[in-house]
Amino acid sequence: MSTDAAVQAIVEDISRKAQTASRSLTTVSSQAKNNILQNVADLLLKRKADIQSVNQEDVAAGKEKGLSEAMLDRLTLSDNVIESMRTGLVEVMTLPDPVGQIANISKRPNDLMVGRMRIPLGVIGMIYESRPNVTIDAAALCLKAGNSIILRGGSEAIRSNIILAEILQEALQKGAINSDAVQVIPTTDRQAINHLLKQERFVDLIIPRGGEDLIRFVSENSRIPVLKHYKGVCHIYVDKDADYSKATPIIINSKVQRPGVCNALEGLLIHKEVAGTYLPEVVAELKKSGVTVLGCSETVAICPGTAAAGEQDWGTEFLDLKLCVKVVDSMQEAMDYVARYGSKHTETIITENYTTAHYFLAQVDASAVMVNASTRFNDGGQLGLGAEIGISTTKLHSYGPMGLEELTTQKFIVYGTGQVRN
Amino acid sequence: MSTDAAVQAIVEDISRKAQTASRSLTTVSSQAKNNILQNVADLLLKRKADIQSVNQEDVAAGKEKGLSEAMLDRLTLSDNVIESMRTGLVEVMTLPDPVGQIANISKRPNDLMVGRMRIPLGVIGMIYESRPNVTIDAAALCLKAGNSIILRGGSEAIRSNIILAEILQEALQKGAINSDAVQVIPTTDRQAINHLLKQERFVDLIIPRGGEDLIRFVSENSRIPVLKHYKGVCHIYVDKDADYSKATPIIINSKVQRPGVCNALEGLLIHKEVAGTYLPEVVAELKKSGVTVLGCSETVAICPGTAAAGEQDWGTEFLDLKLCVKVVDSMQEAMDYVARYGSKHTETIITENYTTAHYFLAQVDASAVMVNASTRFNDGGQLGLGAEIGISTTKLHSYGPMGLEELTTQKFIVYGTGQVRN
Repeated sequence: MSTDAAVQAIVEDISRKAQTASRSLTTVSSQAKNNILQNVADLLLKRKADIQSVNQEDVAAGKEKGLSEAMLDRLTLSDNVIESMRTGLVEVMTLPDPVGQIANISKRPNDLMVGRMRIPLGVIGMIYESRPNVTIDAAALCLKAGNSIILRGGSEAIRSNIILAEILQEALQKGAINSDAVQVIPTTDRQAINHLLKQERFVDLIIPRGGEDLIRFVSENSRIPVLKHYKGVCHIYVDKDADYSKATPIIINSKVQRPGVCNALEGLLIHKEVAGTYLPEVVAELKKSGVTVLGCSETVAICPGTAAAGEQDWGTEFLDLKLCVKVVDSMQEAMDYVARYGSKHTETIITENYTTAHYFLAQVDASAVMVNASTRFNDGGQLGLGAEIGISTTKLHSYGPMGLEELTTQKFIVYGTGQVRN
Repeated sequence: MSTDAAVQAIVEDISRKAQTASRSLTTVSSQAKNNILQNVADLLLKRKADIQSVNQEDVAAGKEKGLSEAMLDRLTLSDNVIESMRTGLVEVMTLPDPVGQIANISKRPNDLMVGRMRIPLGVIGMIYESRPNVTIDAAALCLKAGNSIILRGGSEAIRSNIILAEILQEALQKGAINSDAVQVIPTTDRQAINHLLKQERFVDLIIPRGGEDLIRFVSENSRIPVLKHYKGVCHIYVDKDADYSKATPIIINSKVQRPGVCNALEGLLIHKEVAGTYLPEVVAELKKSGVTVLGCSETVAICPGTAAAGEQDWGTEFLDLKLCVKVVDSMQEAMDYVARYGSKHTETIITENYTTAHYFLAQVDASAVMVNASTRFNDGGQLGLGAEIGISTTKLHSYGPMGLEELTTQKFIVYGTGQVRN
């Protein structure tokens, strides 16, 4: 058997087992699922020394390979990271279990009672890059929603991911649940991803998390539905009826609080009627916070000394202390700009005008549209989902942060008393 | 330019225009959308002679090509079919418009108000076979849900589809709405489907309707999410606690009322404890209704003269007056059989036992799971959706009949008063 055939056989075997396990997960009680999560939290503490020793092998190998400091930092399972994994498990335990919830039972004219019951999706394939804590976070959410999960992390974290999977499986066994519900693909062979993406008989959903290249590769090669976002190019539009005292803190928070994440601000649009008064004020504040402003010609004219934005800057996800600033003639121009350069992630308007706010909320196409609030709120925890497994910027199934409910679907259930169709 | 490049250019141009039109559809009022549907209904009457004359050209060409009587029948726009298209339009007018509905506004600890607003999906590509009435039915549902639609019908109906698209576009123009919201791909070149499936920049969802080969081709070649069902292999399980007086009419109705459709019964499973008494009764009734029974060895033993089912018969979608019958040892065996041979379409249990019914409803994985009711009820109209554009047997986004709501998605909306993130 060639190596590739061997990898294919491994991935297919894992996928088949995951599906079998998912069938038995469907009716596990919330209490039993929570017990497993508690077991995982306990084992993380009990086996912390082992985990960190294995993790150090990954870190040492990463250093040898010349990984950047930032990547090594993300790879490291420090005491703090392990503690936050444990906190995350407890949070997921406290979330209501969506599985089995029945919505909207209605009575049809023939007395059939028709409702919809929430059920798990089945098997979820998670493809992600270096952070090994994702292994625990993602598995916890998938399990609580009654799904099996197949984990394919970055090759540099393979040893850490394998020991974390062992802990998850030990916790499942302790709870007398089929431990195939959580599996890590044990090879770093890149072909494994290709094979996983073709297991449409066994796998119901693929969630990729990582750089744009990874996500594009996954969505172009998958036969399985993919929930993803490529990037977060978020904007704030300061309307002519904006309250500046709200605008400035929101803009600074959106750009500066954590510039490297997908819900950070990348583009600022300002109505021409207020550009003359407000632009100098906000640009000064941005510069004070260390932000490099790249302006349109009007911005440069109003705020001399500002760098001019090049065509390639509009719509760029800087993930850095950089911000494009553009003066627009109208809200319509702002919305057209967002439609052209945005990424359907998060769009905010700053306005005190009721009708303007109403129209912006209805018209703008993004996973989260906000009035007078920081773009940084587009996050499962902040929006009330409790925890998130990712943010979807595609509209099918889920748009925006995905929590437990988004890891389920609904089937129709019908309570009859002997009805037949006429 | 090669022919294929020309087809590609046509499809890309249509897709791009559809997306532009979809943006302006987002905020069209329900009233304006209903007016367009009324315009379509009026035009169908006014231009009936034209439609039927063009349709007769398709029928004549189909006869020449040797289409079967059944296919010619499906192709023909008779007075009755046109009338049912008009009735369908009026039904869609009466349905509540899901777009703009806001659900579950909740207040976060920082006083952010977070809700979800229903929005159209955007652009829907519909790929279907011979029936030209689908052109009107599908366009009506997509428009009411605020979506643009690109229609690719069977080549044998091309003339009929083009005149129906003209009528739809005339109705849109009358309502002062961008008529690119409904477009028929004007070429019968098969490559057009391939090109449509790659317009992921412009098209948000593909819905194929037709034979299993078409649907498999579409889902294997699409870069765009696909909602589909391959086939309907529906079962009824007669439990040991069944009420025979309910079981028999339900079984006969499920199998006989319309054997050629996806929610018709294809497999009957009977608990061994009642097989001896009930099987002879139900098999006699089935034979009386003209159904050929293909039985397992126990069925053949209990009902001599019954044909034996071959391995290839289990899980077959007969779409005909044929039925597989199998005796099972337990409900668990019935559920295992359904998991192996079913198609996640419709599964019914006949039982008077509360706990058994409860367990079957929770455990069986199908788009509709029923107790004591005919499988024929798995239909958008029957389950209360008003009208359906198809039935999904995949779990992402929608599972079961898809009505107006399933042609939309939800975005997060946030009403802030200046909040920033800590």
